[in-house]
Amino acid sequence: MRASRIDAFLMTQNVDLYYYSGSMQTGYLFIPSIGEATFYVRRSVERAKLETAVRVAELGAFRHFGQTLRNDYGALFGQSEAGSVRMAADLDVLPAQTFLKLSELLTSSGRCELIDGSAYIRRQRMIKSAWEIGRIEAAAQAVAEALDASLHELREGVSELDWMARVEYELRRRGHIGLMRMRGYNQEIATGMVISGAAAAVPSYFDGPAGGLGLGAASPQSVSRSIIRRNEPILLDVGCCIDGYVIDQTRTAVIGALPAHLMKAYEVSETLIQAAERQMMPGALCSKLYEDALAGCAAEGLADHFMGFGPDQAKFLGHGIGLEIDEWPVLAKGFDIPLEPGMVIAVEPKFTFPGEGVVGIENSYLITEQGPRALTRSKTGLIVLP
Amino acid sequence: MRASRIDAFLMTQNVDLYYYSGSMQTGYLFIPSIGEATFYVRRSVERAKLETAVRVAELGAFRHFGQTLRNDYGALFGQSEAGSVRMAADLDVLPAQTFLKLSELLTSSGRCELIDGSAYIRRQRMIKSAWEIGRIEAAAQAVAEALDASLHELREGVSELDWMARVEYELRRRGHIGLMRMRGYNQEIATGMVISGAAAAVPSYFDGPAGGLGLGAASPQSVSRSIIRRNEPILLDVGCCIDGYVIDQTRTAVIGALPAHLMKAYEVSETLIQAAERQMMPGALCSKLYEDALAGCAAEGLADHFMGFGPDQAKFLGHGIGLEIDEWPVLAKGFDIPLEPGMVIAVEPKFTFPGEGVVGIENSYLITEQGPRALTRSKTGLIVLP
Repeated sequence: MRASRIDAFLMTQNVDLYYYSGSMQTGYLFIPSIGEATFYVRRSVERAKLETAVRVAELGAFRHFGQTLRNDYGALFGQSEAGSVRMAADLDVLPAQTFLKLSELLTSSGRCELIDGSAYIRRQRMIKSAWEIGRIEAAAQAVAEALDASLHELREGVSELDWMARVEYELRRRGHIGLMRMRGYNQEIATGMVISGAAAAVPSYFDGPAGGLGLGAASPQSVSRSIIRRNEPILLDVGCCIDGYVIDQTRTAVIGALPAHLMKAYEVSETLIQAAERQMMPGALCSKLYEDALAGCAAEGLADHFMGFGPDQAKFLGHGIGLEIDEWPVLAKGFDIPLEPGMVIAVEPKFTFPGEGVVGIENSYLITEQGPRALTRSKTGLIVLP
Repeated sequence: MRASRIDAFLMTQNVDLYYYSGSMQTGYLFIPSIGEATFYVRRSVERAKLETAVRVAELGAFRHFGQTLRNDYGALFGQSEAGSVRMAADLDVLPAQTFLKLSELLTSSGRCELIDGSAYIRRQRMIKSAWEIGRIEAAAQAVAEALDASLHELREGVSELDWMARVEYELRRRGHIGLMRMRGYNQEIATGMVISGAAAAVPSYFDGPAGGLGLGAASPQSVSRSIIRRNEPILLDVGCCIDGYVIDQTRTAVIGALPAHLMKAYEVSETLIQAAERQMMPGALCSKLYEDALAGCAAEGLADHFMGFGPDQAKFLGHGIGLEIDEWPVLAKGFDIPLEPGMVIAVEPKFTFPGEGVVGIENSYLITEQGPRALTRSKTGLIVLP
């Protein structure tokens, strides 16, 4: 914090609160650059005290919050009498209405600047602890089991929705919390998607390589009521969230056989993920992995189909996962940071063929000193059903 | 708009985009007080054009968005040369980071003020069209069917999680989109909760009368792995989202019989909802309904148990539902607005007994000229299982 001239952090989002305090009760977590943090809780104070080792205080009336901070952290606010106190918050998720109220409260009785600290948070959260990795592994195990338990019902004539319901039933019983959190505004995901044939290849707002037709304009992504048919690719992009941590993985299935050009594209996706595995050593640049994958696609004549089609292509090869499904780092242009041990990244080369479907594979990896270690438990390879 | 001296609205949230355009592709919907609206879409432009009757334009580079608006709406920006253009946006949900960027873009090349328009949006969305009511009824039907289809598996020894998984399977097959949208920051809900005995009565951050123990500190509300036992109240607070619209309903079940004091409290919840039904005529004040319910609880000696216990009581009797589960109006103190035909309100008197459980009932009603019409399809009354 001090290197960035930040005097304090104010965490507001449930996931950030949980990461830094162990509790996601409603309130504000104040972390000064010097001294003890306080979790100011609106509700439930009783439960927050059970969940966190951080000092808990009642938030009280919100309009007094600025004064409360000044009373509790007099030294911090006093020291900066010359300049203003620089307080960083998770402004990438905090609604503007609350931001404006907070700014007013904090600045009204003294000089204080509320700045965007989200990049610091996202950077810190890139590196997972052994405990976090354990949670992601538990989620990976749950997805592998849920798919295995449901695969016998993946038949010609079943709808995407019906089979997804079946998988979700298995995920839920294994402790899936019912949704996977995403940091991006307006992005939603419950358990991923099972999308097949032409319905899979429909462009979508979802910031991923495949969105799916969805259940209508009010839910325009993920599963639809389309019927799963023979000889079409079925994309099983399914995840879950156990103890707050998500896994993300994709397998491609087919009942019968894929047409030759889709089979070839699927094989290229496996080649690309194997190439990524060889590259994912500490020090490798995230942007380089994406560029190399793009070059690989171009060499195979598949550039237009990579990660979506035409104007709706997603511009990445993979993304960090953890408490949220869209964590850092991103394997994308401009992400010129090196891989580090402790990062967990979902790598997902996929190819979209409008009117025909989407094929690809996705595994999640922990970066170690020795290279990537797959956290995904499901067997790799195309799933061929009779 | 003109009465409020607002020159234009800028919608940013997926639900607001859908409400005003019929599409929730990623972008910004600009609605001027005079002239035609434009939906500036980042992704997918192709899909937005299929979904909305509003003019669609490509958003292009975000940094040029201010200039784009000035070019496309020259008259609007020109007319206000003396004062600044007042542009309202949904600042209760728009992240501060994007708000700050937008403000900079819009103000850099001319005078423009980005103000909070969320109250206007929430007020407008209170009154449902016949089409919207139809969607809510479809959701009500799905919940009623899903509960009926699952009730035979609600047995002693089953965990809350396992039975919720069963209900969710039935909901999903009927078209539930996988989550219920909430407008409130940090609030989450997938399908509600099935919570029993002491686990139901644990205080929670969730802004409702009962939160539940949940699956751990990273999901500290809704179902837990607690085992459903004989002679304890089981709160079936279950909803779903069909075509974007939600229903919210609660039934209380028991395997065996409720202890006398819980049975009495359950009966008071029925009395309170019947009293609310008599009051819910157009013109009745929302705040009055809450006050009268409070008085009713006090008369029964149940004031401390109403809508949560002690410091964790929720301060309302009911809430609007529609595209989101936490819509306006709220039956709460300070909400001194009259009921109007077209409003849809979930009324949910509930009583919390720490260490014992939660009892109550929740129905959703459409306000008509003749009074409330129940949209909830499930039979009322305590569900007694052998």
